[in-house]
Amino acid sequence: MLTHAVQATDGAARAGVLRTAHGEVETPVFMPVGTAGTVKAMTADAVRATGARMVLGNTYHLMLRPTAERVARLGGLHRMMDWHGPILTDSGGFQVMSLAKLRKMDEQGVVFRSHIDGSKHALSPERSIAIQHLLGADVTMCLDECTPFPATEAEAANSMRLSMRWAARCREAFVPRDGHGLFGIVQGGVYPDLRAESVAALRAIGFEGYAVGGLAVGEGQETMFRVLEATVPLLPADRPRYLMGVGTPADLVGAVRRGIDMFDCVMPTRSGRTAKAFTRHGALNLRNARHADDGAPLDPDCACPACARHSRAYLHHLFKAEEMLGPMLLTWHNIRYYQDLMRELREAILAGRFEAAAAAIESGWNAAKEPAA
Amino acid sequence: MLTHAVQATDGAARAGVLRTAHGEVETPVFMPVGTAGTVKAMTADAVRATGARMVLGNTYHLMLRPTAERVARLGGLHRMMDWHGPILTDSGGFQVMSLAKLRKMDEQGVVFRSHIDGSKHALSPERSIAIQHLLGADVTMCLDECTPFPATEAEAANSMRLSMRWAARCREAFVPRDGHGLFGIVQGGVYPDLRAESVAALRAIGFEGYAVGGLAVGEGQETMFRVLEATVPLLPADRPRYLMGVGTPADLVGAVRRGIDMFDCVMPTRSGRTAKAFTRHGALNLRNARHADDGAPLDPDCACPACARHSRAYLHHLFKAEEMLGPMLLTWHNIRYYQDLMRELREAILAGRFEAAAAAIESGWNAAKEPAA
Repeated sequence: MLTHAVQATDGAARAGVLRTAHGEVETPVFMPVGTAGTVKAMTADAVRATGARMVLGNTYHLMLRPTAERVARLGGLHRMMDWHGPILTDSGGFQVMSLAKLRKMDEQGVVFRSHIDGSKHALSPERSIAIQHLLGADVTMCLDECTPFPATEAEAANSMRLSMRWAARCREAFVPRDGHGLFGIVQGGVYPDLRAESVAALRAIGFEGYAVGGLAVGEGQETMFRVLEATVPLLPADRPRYLMGVGTPADLVGAVRRGIDMFDCVMPTRSGRTAKAFTRHGALNLRNARHADDGAPLDPDCACPACARHSRAYLHHLFKAEEMLGPMLLTWHNIRYYQDLMRELREAILAGRFEAAAAAIESGWNAAKEPAA
Repeated sequence: MLTHAVQATDGAARAGVLRTAHGEVETPVFMPVGTAGTVKAMTADAVRATGARMVLGNTYHLMLRPTAERVARLGGLHRMMDWHGPILTDSGGFQVMSLAKLRKMDEQGVVFRSHIDGSKHALSPERSIAIQHLLGADVTMCLDECTPFPATEAEAANSMRLSMRWAARCREAFVPRDGHGLFGIVQGGVYPDLRAESVAALRAIGFEGYAVGGLAVGEGQETMFRVLEATVPLLPADRPRYLMGVGTPADLVGAVRRGIDMFDCVMPTRSGRTAKAFTRHGALNLRNARHADDGAPLDPDCACPACARHSRAYLHHLFKAEEMLGPMLLTWHNIRYYQDLMRELREAILAGRFEAAAAAIESGWNAAKEPAA
C-alpha cells in the first residue's frame, strides 16, 4: 500500500511524506510531466538535479508509442527512462478527449483513433488500469471523464456519475501491490453539491489517494479555489490529495493553502520551450529584446545552470538562434523554480509560518513586472 | 604564445600537449563544434563530461548573432557559453562562402549578406582577426579562401596565393598575447606543388600552428590522405597541425597516422541530431525499426548516459516520438565516442603501438555492419 503521513498542518496547508515502492517523497510535491517517457528537453539526471523526486507519465502517449507492452518488455517505465523515483501515470482519458480523433464514448469506455497514425484503440477502466500496471506506475489513476467547462449542472452530474461507476470498475481491476496505490478522481464541475456527491461516492469505494479533477479548464483561478474550498475538507485527512494539471506558481500557493499535497502541470516545461521563465521576481519572456545586452542572471537567487552560469543575454541569444540549449536551460530553470517553491512552502508549513512565506513569495512576483512583450 | 610540445611519435603519428591561455590540452584532440556559442543539444557541463577539453566557435555565426561586440561586452565567448577550456575560432571565410548570400570577393576581402536577415557585412583579414580577438579565441585562424573542389591547377594556384597574401595581413593584424596563437592555413587543392608552395609561404611568415584546409570537400578519403602525405612532412615539427572540418572516425585514424594533431567536425553533433550513432562496432541509425525492441545498450563499451543508462529501444522511441532527448543523448554519445577514440590513439602513440591499436579499432567497425536502413 502507498501511504501519506502528514507531518504538520498550518491552517489547511499540509506537509507530509508519501511512501511508495520507489521511495519517499516530501509533500507538497510538484511532479514534472514526462509525457512520452521523457521530461521534455531534460535528461533524467537533470530532472533529479532540479530537486524533483516524482514524475508523471502519460498513459495515452505511452500506450500508442512505444506501447505499454513494449515498455513492460523493456523492464517498465522507470527502467526505460532511467527514473528511479516514484512515477504517477494518468489514466489516458483526458488526452483521449483532447488529442485523439473520432472518439466514441459509452458506458463501457472510449474508442478512438490515434493522433499519430489514425490507428484504432479502445480505453476502458479495466484497460487503463492494465496499461498503468504494465508501465509500472507507483500511483495509478482511475479512468474518468474530465467534465468540460462550461457544463450545465445536469451535464456535470451525468458526467461525474459515469466517472464514479468507472471508479468502482477501476478499483476492481487494480491489483494491490506493496508501495503502489490507486487514486480516485473527484469530478462535478463547479457545483459544490456534485463535488460532495463525488467525494462520497469515492470514499465509499475507498482509494489510497484522492485527486481533484476537472479544474484549470477555463473556469478561472477564483472559481477553482472556491471548488477546492468546497471539496478538500470532505476528503479523508489520512490520504494524499492531488490537484491534477495545475498550474501557475500562484495556483500552487493557493492550492497548498487549501490543503492540496500533489501537483503536476506541463506549464514549467512547455513554457521553458517557448522562452517563458518563472522566477522569484515574476515571469518574463527571454525573447524580449530588452534582454539582448543584459549580463545579469535570469534569477540571482536560483542555483540552476541557466541562472548560476549564464546571463539573460545568452539565454536571449539561444532562443533567437533557435538553439536547443535555450529550451534545455529554461526547462531546467522552470522545474527547479517549481521545486524550490514547493520546498519553501513545505518548510514554512513545518515552521508554522505558511501565510508569511506565501505573502513574501507573492510580493516578490509583483515587485518586478515585465512590460508587455 | 601558444605552444605544442610533442611527447612521443610513432611513425608519423604524434602525441603532445597544447598549452593555451585556458589550460593544457592533450593531442591528438578532437574539438566539438559550438557554432553559435553552444555545442548544439549539449550543456557546457555535458561537453566537459564527454572528455572534450577544447571547442570551436564559428566567427561567421557569432559576428551576425549575437555579434562579436556583444560577446565582448558579455565578457567574451568563454564566459558567455560557460566554457573555460580553450576555444579555437575559425575565420568566418568558409561559412561566408557556404551560407551567406550575394557575396562579392576581391583582394580586400569579401562583402556579403547575412543568411539570417539579409543585412550587409564585410569580412577582411583584418576584420576577421579583430572579431576573433573580440570573441577571445585562444587559437585564431587566418582568413583564407577554401578552394572549391574540383578546381584546375591555375584556379587552385590563384586561390591559394590570395590566401597567402591574406595570411600575411592576418599576421600583421593579430595582437600577440600570452597563451594565444594564430594559425596559418595551407591551401593548394589536390596539387602537391601548390601545397608545398603554400607551406613555404606560411613558414616564411611564421605561425604558432599550421592548419591544412580545403580538404573533405568532395575529393574523397584517398585523395585527402595523399594530400596530407605531401603536405604534413613539410610543416615544422614543433608546431601543432590542424586538419580543418574532418571527419569520420576512419578519417581521424588515417590523419593521426599521417601526423595531424587537431581536428574539428560537425559530424558527431549533426549525426547525433539525425539519429546516427558512431560506435566501436560501426555506425548505426537509431530510427531503424530493428532497434524498436532491442533492450541492449547502443555501445556496451561506452560510459556515456545514452549507453550506460538506456537501451537502443528507448533511443529509437525518442527519435520516433521526436523528443529532444533523442538528439541530446545521441550527440552526447557521439562526442564521447570521438573523445574516447582520440584518447585511445594517444595512449597507443605513447606506448609505441599505434598501428596495432588502429587495426583493432578498424576491425571493430567492420565486425558488425548494419544492414542498409
